[in-house]
Amino acid sequence: MNYLMIIYILGWILSCEGALMLPSVVVALIYGEYPAGCAILIAAGLCLLIGLPITRKKPSNSVFYTREGFVTVALCWITISVMGSLPFIISGAIPNPIDALFETVSGFTTTGASILADVEVVPKCLIFWRSFTHWIGGMGILVFLLAFIPMSGGYHMNLMKAESPGPSVEKLFPTVQSTAKALYKMYLFLTVLQVILLLIGRMPLFDALTITFGTAGTGGFGVHNNSAAGYSPYCQYVITLFMILFGVNFSVYFLIMIRRTKRALQSEEIRYYLGIIGICILVIMFNIRHMYPTLEETFRQAAFQVASIITTTGYSTTDFNYWPELSRNILLLIMFVGACAGSTGGGIKVSRIIVLAKSIRQELIHFIHPRAVTKITVDGKVVSRENVRGIYAFLAVYLLIFVVSVLLVSLDNLDGMTNISAVASAFNNIGPGLNEVGPLENFGIYSDFSTFVLTLDMLAGRLEIFPLLLLFTPGTWKKF
Amino acid sequence: MNYLMIIYILGWILSCEGALMLPSVVVALIYGEYPAGCAILIAAGLCLLIGLPITRKKPSNSVFYTREGFVTVALCWITISVMGSLPFIISGAIPNPIDALFETVSGFTTTGASILADVEVVPKCLIFWRSFTHWIGGMGILVFLLAFIPMSGGYHMNLMKAESPGPSVEKLFPTVQSTAKALYKMYLFLTVLQVILLLIGRMPLFDALTITFGTAGTGGFGVHNNSAAGYSPYCQYVITLFMILFGVNFSVYFLIMIRRTKRALQSEEIRYYLGIIGICILVIMFNIRHMYPTLEETFRQAAFQVASIITTTGYSTTDFNYWPELSRNILLLIMFVGACAGSTGGGIKVSRIIVLAKSIRQELIHFIHPRAVTKITVDGKVVSRENVRGIYAFLAVYLLIFVVSVLLVSLDNLDGMTNISAVASAFNNIGPGLNEVGPLENFGIYSDFSTFVLTLDMLAGRLEIFPLLLLFTPGTWKKF
Repeated sequence: MNYLMIIYILGWILSCEGALMLPSVVVALIYGEYPAGCAILIAAGLCLLIGLPITRKKPSNSVFYTREGFVTVALCWITISVMGSLPFIISGAIPNPIDALFETVSGFTTTGASILADVEVVPKCLIFWRSFTHWIGGMGILVFLLAFIPMSGGYHMNLMKAESPGPSVEKLFPTVQSTAKALYKMYLFLTVLQVILLLIGRMPLFDALTITFGTAGTGGFGVHNNSAAGYSPYCQYVITLFMILFGVNFSVYFLIMIRRTKRALQSEEIRYYLGIIGICILVIMFNIRHMYPTLEETFRQAAFQVASIITTTGYSTTDFNYWPELSRNILLLIMFVGACAGSTGGGIKVSRIIVLAKSIRQELIHFIHPRAVTKITVDGKVVSRENVRGIYAFLAVYLLIFVVSVLLVSLDNLDGMTNISAVASAFNNIGPGLNEVGPLENFGIYSDFSTFVLTLDMLAGRLEIFPLLLLFTPGTWKKF
Repeated sequence: MNYLMIIYILGWILSCEGALMLPSVVVALIYGEYPAGCAILIAAGLCLLIGLPITRKKPSNSVFYTREGFVTVALCWITISVMGSLPFIISGAIPNPIDALFETVSGFTTTGASILADVEVVPKCLIFWRSFTHWIGGMGILVFLLAFIPMSGGYHMNLMKAESPGPSVEKLFPTVQSTAKALYKMYLFLTVLQVILLLIGRMPLFDALTITFGTAGTGGFGVHNNSAAGYSPYCQYVITLFMILFGVNFSVYFLIMIRRTKRALQSEEIRYYLGIIGICILVIMFNIRHMYPTLEETFRQAAFQVASIITTTGYSTTDFNYWPELSRNILLLIMFVGACAGSTGGGIKVSRIIVLAKSIRQELIHFIHPRAVTKITVDGKVVSRENVRGIYAFLAVYLLIFVVSVLLVSLDNLDGMTNISAVASAFNNIGPGLNEVGPLENFGIYSDFSTFVLTLDMLAGRLEIFPLLLLFTPGTWKKF
């Protein structure tokens, strides 16, 4: 294990985080929130004070294996979460450190679950920082580092692999740095576009920025207690559209960028993704048809909620807690499906679901023709046995963690659906759950112990389990 | 597809079923229940009238492939369920055919879920038939056929493979017939032993027989409205012990029978099975320690309920609906774990869970040492890649059916935990669920549509999905 190199990268990450806190200080100045601004400034100062000296000297040995990549990513995310929670603790907005950590991890992992009962009394600069963590976490802070900080060595790919969601990472460009840059360019472009469209709909600039951060990262922290219910139908449609867009695999945008639109639209994952969204909207519309006065509103409510949950964003425009059981269950189900691989969304990911579905079909064929030789293909390419096995192991460990978390959380003796949906929501980085953690409720009802379990779930979900799991596996720390 | 052969076997199955209905007619005579006895007699007559003529001429072509085996088993189970429901319909005890089918499928699949609100008013001979279906379904009616009816041809193994629970079937003897015979001998021995022990505890003969049928098949139909709560602590301990015994892989008993006890006790599956039971009992005891006056009763309640649920029997001695959320969730969880492969129990089966757990470990090792060559071994034997893949595909299709069933059932708009536990209970062949389908409730609250969905779930669960799934796969019916 190359400890020096890991510490070096942690130094850079801390420096980055310190710098990324500064826009929130500007917000504090604009709104005259001096005590809260000071809290953020102190946290930023601490990050830079610890981080910058470490980055001064690069270790000579830059050998970096897969396991180092996973460990580094896990440690980075823990570090930025701990440091990122300092503004909340120092300012006194969230005095309990476990709650503050929950809120920050919820931000960086783009979950959007909150323990705050009333966000409208929290200083705007802290709300801005909270939403900004979504934007940072969405594309990944290490990808950010790889894109903009001059680093060299063979460890890039291992870091990117470990941080990016989905079963495999496509290199868009020959080098990791140019790939990371291209990703952030597309990310920034879509972000700016959404802000402009929301401003056209007369949304205030502060709301437009924070809501866009939440949409881009598929996070879901709102700035009002009723989430997105107070915005105009136009703005709700814009948010719906961009939630779906940010749930798309970014390599599709890359293909469109280099004018290979046809190949982009042939992607099986996109077609299934849009197909699932379409079917869910239709079924829910039919199921809730008596609840809203017009067809337009029924469509808007169904589309917004489906887009919000499947992309794991978590905004809401209505309290779907009161929807019929079928619609509630559909939402609970697509919490697990999640968005496309290589997007900013969480969940199991559509591409994994496709491979799982195809392997069920394969198994059925084997029952009928025991000696048949079959292959699983996606987009015309054969999925290797190792990949299929990896996806299955992911599913198994995913279920295991889900089950253990529900058992631990159920110690608080809340009702079963609250616990199941709370863990599903945290683990898939969504935000709201059902019943007592519904869209108009918050996670404050849970004990410190459960809050901590849910915090770990959010991290495990965002990093797709294995990096975090390896941290607790003794074998990781053994010498080769 | 060898249709003639399939029909020939169906003829035998019908004849068997007709004969197996006759003991219930004797019960009717003893209790003087003539109308109900007539209903059973008519059903038995119908079975024999259709079945016997078919068995007169054996088809010359006895070629039988895996797919024929699966299709035959699925059709057999559907046939015996439809015919087995006739006594309930004809006698008017359950006039709605969908409900009667549910009750019969619940019997044969050893689920034990009931739509009857009051079993104590139903004629005893029908209750006897209902419990006897558990005993027939537990070890499998085709295994029964293979054991006692002289048949020849190469199709035996394919039938037995398709009907026996678990990822693989162990042939105890060189021929299928002697294996099937050995299985039924052990089954009968344990059954008689339990009846004797219950009679010693002064349980009435009728109760002793029916409760034993339910225990042996891991079914769970009770003869009183409060299930097993009314029996003495001694009888409850006997039932607990035998539930655990019938959840054990029968090849272990075979090893003990041929005096290889040491090898029998070394079975990993048994050790994990007993380990899981032990841990669950301890955790639940701690969790419910304030609910019962003595330590003995706390232990008895915890042990009975855990044994009942993990073996998928479904008897209860207390309303665990009122247990704390952690204990309820543990019960819900072990519904999925199920008993050992090769036992009469349902669920995913402990042996599959072991392979899944080991493959998670294997995947972690691969993350740390990407080039490591690893194998999964159980009981010192390597589990082949095909087997691991099959278990994973089983898990995937299992989850798929579970999710689709919950969505369909949720159309009735009952609460989420009721639906999830109802499907879990039916699919894993347990019996009671939580909330509105709890141990003291019944499945009568569901609509006909949901009842039918749950009926299919029970069949799919008992036949381990694929036989039933193949019935609806177009490729099954194509010529090679």
